[in-house]
Amino acid sequence: MARNLWGWGEVEAADALDDSRARAEAFFGPLEVEDAAPPRVPAPRLEVPAALQAFSTADAATRAAHAMGKSYVDRVRGFRGDFSSAPDLVAFPRGEADLVAVLEVADAYRLAVIPFGGGSSVVGGVEPRLGPRHRGAVTVDLSRLREVLEVDDVSRVARVQAGVLGPDLERQLGAHGLTLRHFPQSFEYSSLGGWLATRAGGHFATVYTRIDELTQAVRLVTPRGVVETKTVPAHGAGPDANRLVLGSEGALGLITEAWMRVRPRPVFRGNASVHFEDFQRAVDATRAIAQSGLFPANCRLLDAQEAFLNGVAADGTSVLVLGFESADASVGPWLDRAVALAEAHGGTCPRGKTLKDDAGKARGGDAGDSWRASFLRGPYLQDAMIRLGVVADTFETACTWRAFPALYAEVTQVVREALERVCGSGVVTCRFTHVYPDGPAPYFTFLGKARRGGEVEQWIELKRAASDALLRCGGTITHHHAVGRVHRSWYERERPALFGEALKAVKRAWDPSGLLNPGVLLDAEP
Amino acid sequence: MARNLWGWGEVEAADALDDSRARAEAFFGPLEVEDAAPPRVPAPRLEVPAALQAFSTADAATRAAHAMGKSYVDRVRGFRGDFSSAPDLVAFPRGEADLVAVLEVADAYRLAVIPFGGGSSVVGGVEPRLGPRHRGAVTVDLSRLREVLEVDDVSRVARVQAGVLGPDLERQLGAHGLTLRHFPQSFEYSSLGGWLATRAGGHFATVYTRIDELTQAVRLVTPRGVVETKTVPAHGAGPDANRLVLGSEGALGLITEAWMRVRPRPVFRGNASVHFEDFQRAVDATRAIAQSGLFPANCRLLDAQEAFLNGVAADGTSVLVLGFESADASVGPWLDRAVALAEAHGGTCPRGKTLKDDAGKARGGDAGDSWRASFLRGPYLQDAMIRLGVVADTFETACTWRAFPALYAEVTQVVREALERVCGSGVVTCRFTHVYPDGPAPYFTFLGKARRGGEVEQWIELKRAASDALLRCGGTITHHHAVGRVHRSWYERERPALFGEALKAVKRAWDPSGLLNPGVLLDAEP
Repeated sequence: MARNLWGWGEVEAADALDDSRARAEAFFGPLEVEDAAPPRVPAPRLEVPAALQAFSTADAATRAAHAMGKSYVDRVRGFRGDFSSAPDLVAFPRGEADLVAVLEVADAYRLAVIPFGGGSSVVGGVEPRLGPRHRGAVTVDLSRLREVLEVDDVSRVARVQAGVLGPDLERQLGAHGLTLRHFPQSFEYSSLGGWLATRAGGHFATVYTRIDELTQAVRLVTPRGVVETKTVPAHGAGPDANRLVLGSEGALGLITEAWMRVRPRPVFRGNASVHFEDFQRAVDATRAIAQSGLFPANCRLLDAQEAFLNGVAADGTSVLVLGFESADASVGPWLDRAVALAEAHGGTCPRGKTLKDDAGKARGGDAGDSWRASFLRGPYLQDAMIRLGVVADTFETACTWRAFPALYAEVTQVVREALERVCGSGVVTCRFTHVYPDGPAPYFTFLGKARRGGEVEQWIELKRAASDALLRCGGTITHHHAVGRVHRSWYERERPALFGEALKAVKRAWDPSGLLNPGVLLDAEP
Repeated sequence: MARNLWGWGEVEAADALDDSRARAEAFFGPLEVEDAAPPRVPAPRLEVPAALQAFSTADAATRAAHAMGKSYVDRVRGFRGDFSSAPDLVAFPRGEADLVAVLEVADAYRLAVIPFGGGSSVVGGVEPRLGPRHRGAVTVDLSRLREVLEVDDVSRVARVQAGVLGPDLERQLGAHGLTLRHFPQSFEYSSLGGWLATRAGGHFATVYTRIDELTQAVRLVTPRGVVETKTVPAHGAGPDANRLVLGSEGALGLITEAWMRVRPRPVFRGNASVHFEDFQRAVDATRAIAQSGLFPANCRLLDAQEAFLNGVAADGTSVLVLGFESADASVGPWLDRAVALAEAHGGTCPRGKTLKDDAGKARGGDAGDSWRASFLRGPYLQDAMIRLGVVADTFETACTWRAFPALYAEVTQVVREALERVCGSGVVTCRFTHVYPDGPAPYFTFLGKARRGGEVEQWIELKRAASDALLRCGGTITHHHAVGRVHRSWYERERPALFGEALKAVKRAWDPSGLLNPGVLLDAEP
């Protein structure tokens, strides 16, 4: 099935129009639907070099499909037919030897090398751009490297190739009765390598939340050779090499494999939704649970606007969605204690607690799965918003519990004011995607009426207002969307200057010709 | 009270002779006690530069106290009076301005700069050595930087100066009802900065075990300026800068402060000791608990020899010491499930489970505290072993669960054979200090009869046999003792070569004159 060139997912699955229309028209009144323009793809600047012909193409549709990621701006550009950022060729390496050939050719031809997994970047991380020394760009699509190569079910680790997409990975691990349980919202169209390169956040709200904690060892191909870290559960031998590769966003090398920590599928589950009249008390309850040592798998607090937008509550209450899961034993005592903590902060649990201890029951029917289906639908809804003429996007951060109340107040106010200024009106909502003992990861959604043809300028002003406010209030520019090019200027404000110099020094050591992903994470010119 | 120049702790507390004698004579028969030789300290190679006089000294006793760490070899050298590695001067900076002055003077005078916290390194990490360009060495003792500067009890983080030793830190945090709960065996005489610089392992056997996970942000002074990371609970903005500072062992800069994750003292506890006839079944039980998601605070498996040596069991059984703790709620359900898992693997619990839910009860009396007191006694016993003529040391690693059985068999056999060859006879024991879902951190102890005056040569042969075996069997050279100089050759075998180049590139960027801790972690000549 063909991918939707400008939007999310398969062409056939992309129409979430009715659902988005209902949501958007509740705020903005009747909206008109626009259709996508035909794609305009520039001619390639070079022919496919002989050494790459066996596994590369300069076909226009393939190049267009690798022209950019899936941010709001990317989709608007694609919707309007603008695929001017398409690479000159796309390589589909069959193994590391092909990858090395790409790097050698790129060095000889002075090509920028753009690693590409599922292409779901929302920060400009996979869009080809040339550095000052480049004459063209080759995108390296890793989709042929998609095998689970080895499973150690005693240590519960699996060696996996980086190009595998989420559903394929889970299918392969499922054959061993195992799961990675990493479900970012991009799950269907993002790859293991992409998760590692961007330090993706996933399924679990607490403890082993980030892909970092699920990674035992990595293998990275750089222009100078291979970096392969040791397969041990932990070590104290100098700074952790994994942590330099994780988050390197394709600027230091191409991740080809990793040993990932896997686990059996959970069979015991417990869920509850706790409603709060007062948002600050809901935050306090969530903090108490985050600091309790109970480690819920799900601990997502939706503010009243977010609960309303998602159809979870229409009575002005904030809702804390709690979930525990285990492959080992009933989670009843954990759920009981977490709900008791929430109730002690004024929460009520109108629909009570649900406990599933029956290992034989089908997975399809439970609350976690229906939540996940709705969660994975988000990117499709954003496509429909573009067709409807609505500026719709999300941004996210993390801050301390002490900083959160002021950050929440200022960010929502600043973005609401910017929406009024730029779009006439709009709505801002917030939920926590992850919680830590020292603070939450708030995730904001905003909607405003688009000026047809002027969406990108509108978005830039909204994004700038939001991002400036995040940094002003002590938040990070990104908890799990990564830096790419979009977040570069704020990243450079929050990154210690000498750490920037350190990364550039590593870049010079591993990628001395500056081939890799120029302008992503670091300056194009090292 | 004066510190013991060659051994552990205070002079008055250093005599653990009777206890060590009883343990050692059980293996080796009657032993004679030797006394320490008077210290021989070389004259300094330079006078204290004027810019440092207000906070530095070239006093011989102070220089001798900073001549080396507390490894077995260090203590033997000190016991024999050899303080030839003493620095030329010792600075006690009162703040970062003094630190900057030290770095400036060191650059001008071509001095090696040796950061010194508690001085408990067992890998040669605090011993002054000169690089090829150095004319002398200044040790920077951070003990005056020992304040808890700020406490955020909402986010449960505290800003702490790096020079504070364990007990002082806990006393200061205790005034706020908080604790870091990081208790390495060196707790009494190691500093926060040392824990951070070496990625120390501490109290918790699972989840947030390593100081890495307890660190929110760090502040590092380098010759090129300050690196200060952002105070957020997590971020996805590029590789994590904290993780480059953690484990840098004084080679990249001097850690002066950190925001540490703290918590209330636990009031609910549960403990049990589970005995196993068969060691492999005990390992399987421990693995089941490590993979269960129960996250015990203590999960230490002692093999039969270790249990015997520590007086825990004399009947040839292996013992799994389990402990749960919480400041929030009773840990009964957790302990019940963990013990049930252990029993399902053939364990028995002859003394039953202990559950303390009484918040009012004195902390002093519980099993955790008596275990801790005995644990903290270890370094004193090692002093006594030296006086008794016993080679006594420990080494540690981490490996996957799948690798462990062969690693355990080979390492114990190789070290036992080496003890027979080098010492005539000896004993090797093993326990797990930490456990992860993908593998344990085994910790080995060995004892052999010393050849008076030849201990260092004996130790070198034993260490080499053990370390080679660890790497051959898939283990790391260190889970929490760090690299220093002692582990350098094995570290370079396990470290990806290009990661070594990356670290050297960072060293050149942050410490271009190569002032800092030459030869520790990295080559002296960058």
